Order: sequence, then C-alpha cells, then structure tokens
Amino acid sequence: MCVEYGTSLEMEQVSPWKREPDFMSISPAATLPVLMEDGAAPIVGPLASLNFIERRFSPSSVAGLIPADPAMAAETWRLLEWVLFKLGDEVTRYLLEEKIGKRERKNGAPDTGVLRAAKANLNEHLLYFDWILGSRTWTAGSEMSLSDFALAAHLSTLDYLGDMDWANAGATRDFYARMKSRPAFRPLLADRLSIMAPSENYSNLDF
Amino acid sequence: MCVEYGTSLEMEQVSPWKREPDFMSISPAATLPVLMEDGAAPIVGPLASLNFIERRFSPSSVAGLIPADPAMAAETWRLLEWVLFKLGDEVTRYLLEEKIGKRERKNGAPDTGVLRAAKANLNEHLLYFDWILGSRTWTAGSEMSLSDFALAAHLSTLDYLGDMDWANAGATRDFYARMKSRPAFRPLLADRLSIMAPSENYSNLDF
Repeated sequence: MCVEYGTSLEMEQVSPWKREPDFMSISPAATLPVLMEDGAAPIVGPLASLNFIERRFSPSSVAGLIPADPAMAAETWRLLEWVLFKLGDEVTRYLLEEKIGKRERKNGAPDTGVLRAAKANLNEHLLYFDWILGSRTWTAGSEMSLSDFALAAHLSTLDYLGDMDWANAGATRDFYARMKSRPAFRPLLADRLSIMAPSENYSNLDF
Repeated sequence: MCVEYGTSLEMEQVSPWKREPDFMSISPAATLPVLMEDGAAPIVGPLASLNFIERRFSPSSVAGLIPADPAMAAETWRLLEWVLFKLGDEVTRYLLEEKIGKRERKNGAPDTGVLRAAKANLNEHLLYFDWILGSRTWTAGSEMSLSDFALAAHLSTLDYLGDMDWANAGATRDFYARMKSRPAFRPLLADRLSIMAPSENYSNLDF
C-alpha cells in the first residue's frame, strides 16, 4: 500500500501468536502492523498506521487513498472497519491461528470445528462483498481507496491458505485480479511463509 | 463528542439486537452509530462517523480531537482501536447483550458464565488503562483526544450497567470524573434506558 503513496517499507515477519517479550513490549496486545522509524516512537495497529501514512504522504506527494467525496470516504471507512474487525475477527484470524499459529507453536492439529465455522463465516462475507463489487468498480465506489487494500490483503491471506472458492465469487475475483496486477501488490505475491507453501494459483495473475 | 466540535446531534435510540429491517437496510451489519443528515447518504460505523465529523468541523471551527503531534496522534488511534474493538468486543458487547439485549427481546435470563467471563476481561482492561492513566493526563498523552471520548463512552455504559469497580481503578476513576464534568458529557448522564435503571452513582459527578 505504501507504494501507492510513493514510498516503500522494509518488511519484517512477526508471529504475534508467539507473544515474544520484545514484540509485546512494543505492542502490548500483540496487534499488527507496527511501523518503526529511526528515532521515532513505534506506530502500533492498523488505524494508527493508516492515519500516519495518510497524514505524512497525502496530499503532498499523492492524492491519497481516502476519497475527497464525503459519501465515498464514509464507505471507505465503513468497509475498512468491516474488513479489519469483522472479516478479520470472524474469519481470517481463526484460519491463521489454526493453520499457521498452531503449527509454528507445535501446538497440535487444526480444530476442524473451528475451520468449518470460519469457512461458513467466510461464505457470508463473500456473498456481501460480491454483491457490493457487482455494482461498483472499487469497494467504496468509483475510486480506489484504503478499503480496497484492506480487502485485497485479507483475500490474499485467505487465498494463500487455500480457503478461497473463487468459482462462487466472480465479482470479488475480478476485483482481486485487478488488485493483484498493481505495482504495489505484485511483489507481495512472491513472499512465502517458511512453514507452509501457498495454494496452487496464489501468485498467478490469471487464476 | 459533537459538542466538543461546536455542533450538536439529535439522538435516536436504536436496539441493534432487534435487527429491525429498516435499520438493517441502512446498516447491514447492525453497526452503530449511524449519522443521518437530510439529503445525504447515511454515515455508518464509528470510523466513518469520527472521520466525517473531524473532516467537517476541524480545523475550521475547532482544533479537533486528533492531536497534531504524530506520536500522540498514533496513540489516539491505537487506543481508540483498543477501546472500540478490544474492550468493546471482549467486554461491553457481552454485558449489553446479556443485561439489555436479552431483556428487550424477552429472551431469558443473563448467562452467568458469560457475565463472569466479561467481568474477568474487564479487570484486565482496567489494569491496562489504569496503568496508562497513572502516568498521563489523557489516554493519548498531554492532550485530550478521540480516544478519551471512546473510553469514557464505554466506562459510562459499564457504569450504567453496574459493572465498574471504581475502588480498584483510581486513575481511571479520576479520568472519568474529569470527562463527566465536561459540558459535552453532562447531558448524556441524564439519559435513561426505559428497560433498566442505571447503577446508584451513575450520574453523580462525585462518585
């Protein structure tokens, strides 16, 4: 997303489920992301990070990812909130914990009941986003915005884990194909977790 | 909070747990608050509402509730996120559902196991905020900000429900006493739910 603002980041992988003391002393609730800059206090959490980046780089360097139109800006925040705190809490965090967290901590096999519940929740969320994206170019309307990057990040995670059923989410698939092709997004598709390979078509632009 | 921005709102009570069709057609996930303005699309959810109000009224009419200092602004967003999506999801929504939602829907007695878990979570959150407020005037630092209003709103709800143990949260109590005395906050203390009276000292400024 920073690339869209004309800047870049060095990424460092953190496993919040390990609750490592150094990390917890910076982010007491093990919240990600954390932005670190030399000589400045760490910026903790998605809202602080997004607002920091937006304030630092927009509108001086780029137009930014919050639409100027008030109704579209409201849709951006409503759907960003939906992705981070509903899709995230009802779907993504369960699948990450069961498939990655438990494996990294050597803490047993995924709980199939939890996986099943998370997948059922995912279906409901995809019905909603497919309905939204069936009538709009981007999640918030006619302009690309922060909520597109939030949704694409979660779709990418779910796709990596092999949990996306693209055949039943055509409008979402078209949206994600456009996001995947953006310069900001393509390098991320090369990232790999050492503990688990991605699903077959994860980094294919044509999937 | 709007009073701090030099404006005001007419409040209308909604019971999101009733999932009434008119309300759901505006807020498909039954998220509150919803800002309605004649001739404009509804603004749905806390992030959309806060950003809308901040953009509309600040800095033209008031300084606003997002500190200019980047580190303090980051703390504002980090703690706002904490209150809305951690304290809210782990404590307040369970207590509201068990004590108010179930009663309004005539759906049985509160589940004592859920109440006990929510209270245990509340203790952990209060330890954290008491630690924060032991070394700062306001949650984000030396300036009052959005995160103070978010925390005060949750403390007020928890206090109304009789779930605040002020004796064990001295710094939080001092903070809340200051918030209660503000012109923006005092009228709210007169509001009552028809279904349940507030705890004994709910509207006392000296509690």
